[in-house]
Amino acid sequence: MTKAPTSRFKVEVLDGERTSRREDVVVTEEPLELRLEWPGRPPEPLVVTMRTPGSDFELAAGFCLGEGFAVRPGAIRTVAYCTDQRLTREQQFNTVTVTFDGPPDREPPQRYGVTSAACGVCGQQSLDELADRDYAPVDPVEVSVDVVRRLPDLLREAQPTFGKTGGLHAAGLFTADGRKVVVKEDVGRHNAVDKVVGWTVLNQQSRKGLVLAVSGRAGYEIIQKAVAAGIGMIVAVGAPSSLAVDLARRFDITLAGFARGDRCVVYSKPERIIRPA
Amino acid sequence: MTKAPTSRFKVEVLDGERTSRREDVVVTEEPLELRLEWPGRPPEPLVVTMRTPGSDFELAAGFCLGEGFAVRPGAIRTVAYCTDQRLTREQQFNTVTVTFDGPPDREPPQRYGVTSAACGVCGQQSLDELADRDYAPVDPVEVSVDVVRRLPDLLREAQPTFGKTGGLHAAGLFTADGRKVVVKEDVGRHNAVDKVVGWTVLNQQSRKGLVLAVSGRAGYEIIQKAVAAGIGMIVAVGAPSSLAVDLARRFDITLAGFARGDRCVVYSKPERIIRPA
Repeated sequence: MTKAPTSRFKVEVLDGERTSRREDVVVTEEPLELRLEWPGRPPEPLVVTMRTPGSDFELAAGFCLGEGFAVRPGAIRTVAYCTDQRLTREQQFNTVTVTFDGPPDREPPQRYGVTSAACGVCGQQSLDELADRDYAPVDPVEVSVDVVRRLPDLLREAQPTFGKTGGLHAAGLFTADGRKVVVKEDVGRHNAVDKVVGWTVLNQQSRKGLVLAVSGRAGYEIIQKAVAAGIGMIVAVGAPSSLAVDLARRFDITLAGFARGDRCVVYSKPERIIRPA
Repeated sequence: MTKAPTSRFKVEVLDGERTSRREDVVVTEEPLELRLEWPGRPPEPLVVTMRTPGSDFELAAGFCLGEGFAVRPGAIRTVAYCTDQRLTREQQFNTVTVTFDGPPDREPPQRYGVTSAACGVCGQQSLDELADRDYAPVDPVEVSVDVVRRLPDLLREAQPTFGKTGGLHAAGLFTADGRKVVVKEDVGRHNAVDKVVGWTVLNQQSRKGLVLAVSGRAGYEIIQKAVAAGIGMIVAVGAPSSLAVDLARRFDITLAGFARGDRCVVYSKPERIIRPA
């Protein structure tokens, strides 16, 4: 069995002046390693993609068609989970091998995508690998609940292009008292985060005391970038994924989602969001 | 100069019973090739990412921090556009080299990301490379305007998980008369599209006469997958990118965006959306 498409987490909901604790349902995000095999070539890993478990064989087949590897009808002979008995069950169901009936319709490029361990991947492993990189601890920034709730509006106001196109993600760094430091836009959410972090690098600005606001959802990749940048609080307008929550908890990052109007949901380290006494 | 962050396209707006033609502002999407260089190693391409032009040096610096290549303050010596005179201006400004002051803090993996031409990339080139793959022409499916407008609701109704988490993208294939063929969800929009297309592959279902609906925005990657699958119409709830529009036009795909309520904006091949006589 693959993991369920949703996961449950205990969260704090900050609604007006009230704080309540409940379980929240979060979409599951897990790595999937895709391997390709054809007559005369053993299975070789090609790419690791973060996905929601379920319909994994369809995902693999669609990817191979989309990339031009298996275009002819019947080009795919089998699609199967890894059965290497040295792997955990979780790893087995995060590794899919597509076997072609002959040479691929287009030669795959060198292995691409995030590199992973030699055989089998899982969410836990993705977290462990990140921990191995020895980043400095994140900054334990504290921010008042009023500022947290205002961040989505502050981010939107600083977006010059969104209003014109409706097609842009934004990321911004703000001080704990809600002052804008830098806001950038991009078609890719991860690019927008890279742009604001990179701005601090090129301008030799400290990231201490800053909070990261993102316009949409928060997946693994966004939290990973905050870990690397030492940023201790992320406020997202949208929903987080399961791996985002796991990662935020592992690295002591405060993660708030669904920040809209008077409300937000806190998935990790809620004590750093300061409420009126 | 890099390209502007927005681009203009002539579109048809279908609003109730009225059709109007106007210019629409679309977010620019262009490939960026990142190269890394350090003492003793010449610049080598690492990754191509689709991004909105602007703050490209920040994007490159942030990426190198996020991936752990340049974590120490001062690790990055320079960031520069490619100045190879054999490249077009557009290619020069889509190629960024980051030079470290010593060995990288973490050894980059093998080159990853979409492979590109030897030196320099541009949107036009991305389209040309796709054309070189010799896909069969897409299916010139015709769909009534009523069905096009209903697709977002039909897609939403078929999403079992979204209501629970608010965190999922969906993609669906529908017949020209609005019957659901298959709908899949994923944290990644591109994965959801792979899942529905892969479903047709594994179930040996023809994709003739089908239209692809996606819950969010439509970028290059989504249209590319439709090209490979031979699907001739895409209806997106959100905004398209410039490269998505270019690609849809190049491959004769009808592309509608902002499909909400009684309205949608058609960016390509509007004549295949059939209106009452």
